[in-house]
Amino acid sequence: MAEEMPAHDLEGSVGIVERRYHTFATPDDPFVLESGASLPEVTTCFEMYGELNAAGDNVILIEHGITGSSHAAGRFKPDSKYAGYWDALIGPGRAMDTDRFCVIAPNALGGCRGTTGPSSLDPRTGKPYGSRFPGITIRDMVHAQRPFLTELGVRRIRMVIGASMGGMQAIEWAATFPEMVDGLCMIGSNARQTAQAVAFNHCMRRAIISDPNWRGGDYYDSEPPSVGLAIARMIGHITYLSEMRLEREFDLQALNPWPAPERDDYVRFAVEEYLEEEGRKLVHRFDANTYVWVSRAIDLHDLSRGRGSMREALSLIRARTLMIGIQSDWLFPPEQVRRLTDEMRAAGVDATYWEMESASGHDAFLDEQEKLAEPIGRFLADAP
Amino acid sequence: MAEEMPAHDLEGSVGIVERRYHTFATPDDPFVLESGASLPEVTTCFEMYGELNAAGDNVILIEHGITGSSHAAGRFKPDSKYAGYWDALIGPGRAMDTDRFCVIAPNALGGCRGTTGPSSLDPRTGKPYGSRFPGITIRDMVHAQRPFLTELGVRRIRMVIGASMGGMQAIEWAATFPEMVDGLCMIGSNARQTAQAVAFNHCMRRAIISDPNWRGGDYYDSEPPSVGLAIARMIGHITYLSEMRLEREFDLQALNPWPAPERDDYVRFAVEEYLEEEGRKLVHRFDANTYVWVSRAIDLHDLSRGRGSMREALSLIRARTLMIGIQSDWLFPPEQVRRLTDEMRAAGVDATYWEMESASGHDAFLDEQEKLAEPIGRFLADAP
Repeated sequence: MAEEMPAHDLEGSVGIVERRYHTFATPDDPFVLESGASLPEVTTCFEMYGELNAAGDNVILIEHGITGSSHAAGRFKPDSKYAGYWDALIGPGRAMDTDRFCVIAPNALGGCRGTTGPSSLDPRTGKPYGSRFPGITIRDMVHAQRPFLTELGVRRIRMVIGASMGGMQAIEWAATFPEMVDGLCMIGSNARQTAQAVAFNHCMRRAIISDPNWRGGDYYDSEPPSVGLAIARMIGHITYLSEMRLEREFDLQALNPWPAPERDDYVRFAVEEYLEEEGRKLVHRFDANTYVWVSRAIDLHDLSRGRGSMREALSLIRARTLMIGIQSDWLFPPEQVRRLTDEMRAAGVDATYWEMESASGHDAFLDEQEKLAEPIGRFLADAP
Repeated sequence: MAEEMPAHDLEGSVGIVERRYHTFATPDDPFVLESGASLPEVTTCFEMYGELNAAGDNVILIEHGITGSSHAAGRFKPDSKYAGYWDALIGPGRAMDTDRFCVIAPNALGGCRGTTGPSSLDPRTGKPYGSRFPGITIRDMVHAQRPFLTELGVRRIRMVIGASMGGMQAIEWAATFPEMVDGLCMIGSNARQTAQAVAFNHCMRRAIISDPNWRGGDYYDSEPPSVGLAIARMIGHITYLSEMRLEREFDLQALNPWPAPERDDYVRFAVEEYLEEEGRKLVHRFDANTYVWVSRAIDLHDLSRGRGSMREALSLIRARTLMIGIQSDWLFPPEQVRRLTDEMRAAGVDATYWEMESASGHDAFLDEQEKLAEPIGRFLADAP
């Protein structure tokens, strides 16, 4: 997932944006997690585009994917090379129209882009948590976001939206705080993790924790496990793209002569170089522990946990719902999204299914985001 | 790919088998590889079931997959827990009937199960090749097998058959020695590697060569890179099984409480434990360098190399051909096998397509091999 978009289109952009921060909880009044463990302090980094109205009910809440951040739109400096990951969808006159809506995008709990996570300083010790960071869940991410929204004066959420892990947070929002969430949009996501996706995440975690630099997660005073994180990212990237897209984009274009011995930096094919590049890019901006903790949160994702059954969990949702499946997405296949839509309807949810035409695979929600503008804009316009 | 089958069915088995060896080439008359590099000696380990007839024309040649061996049928000792990987298909009265055919199963060049590979001793130094082993191709594997077949008195091959990498060798056999090959059967395989499969192999190689124990491939005097090899195997195993099979077999069955920190041996879900177990099993029987060298040979697989075009390459084939696609195989999708069948026909090959019904994915050619008995038996019976 390339969470940064080349900044090309100034027209309609939200312009220059900045990160904001909110902190709650204290050692005496900690944030209690689903596991029973607690955090003595939770800081959430977020961005906000557009104005909150007096009623506090014009909010669109945006949740990000596994390696995402709060940077959903605009750019930090006039000459930034990259804009936020959904820049084409957010701005004055765009699908998520910042002339009408107040768009809020937080970095998820466990993150490494400003929100409390394993690389944050534990206020009790003054040192990074590392291995002492407690296990977290998608539900914890949702609970951790409510306080700063309340503090901002948010009363109702017109739509909570997310793709991939962002969609997991979005549906947890709708089931956990149904009285607050009027609209839900999930893109290439699910209500419960699949065994295949767990299997991939397992390999990615193994790559990280097998890197000698991982040191059980306590590597902040030394070299980070960049090799392991890069391998994890490479595996992830295969799952983000369709077989067809890899074939179309790289085929078997050869970059280097064969047969060279497999030295540390040997690549033969363009598709290998592409993966290497994605791996290198991630290690410069992302913390390996966050990858481990957040991927586990994804694997633990199960809307039905503690709620009797999936049907009972889904029946908690009051939000009008737009479910989007991506054609050629094999990590979150559209058939599964369609099936979940049916289950939602059977549970009494006002849910609509829309399929995004794409041959690119899961990452189409970023790479071809323009295609999402029409259905999301219509969904918002049709709101009662 | 579980290359060993539980030994259950004595009836119709080829019984007790043994490995045989053939060696050719000398430092003065070496085996020249496709790259121009050469090997001063090539030993091939093979097994043979049934009798070669006087004409030397009743041979079925079996090629194995990436982590396979020459042990295709029977067992080594009466109390062996495991039989050869295609035991249900090979034996008196079975699809590959050893009362009629002489079935020969070699371990491929580059292997670690008796055939010359990176772990073999270089006769010029008396030490394992390690990093000095030359790069090899699928075509090299095929060329390396011809001498021992000639020595055995084989004149014609009634059928060369293989699944996965075995199918790559099989089609190379049919195009390289068309005058010798009367029948070809490819199962879940292709004439040219795909970009997605390269991408997975790249991640697997990265996991191995990033293991500090790999030491550039020269680890035979020290601890082998078992952690890297295990991760490679785990990634591979995901691609061998369908999403549906993982879901059906493991769902999200939890083995251990959460959220435990991600310690080195932590697994939560049954599907994770399954992958760990497959990783552990492989490292005990397989050499990491062979994984690196042979996976690169797979990635270099391209029947058209040096033959003008794919059509021209396919038109070299004289063999009657049975192409088998496996439903739910996403590593070698059946659509691709069907498309290749069409290309073969367009190139003048007498090719038939048969689809194996399975929800299990690529590994069905092992796990559900009984389903292959009828089409393979019929293909052999229908031979002119």
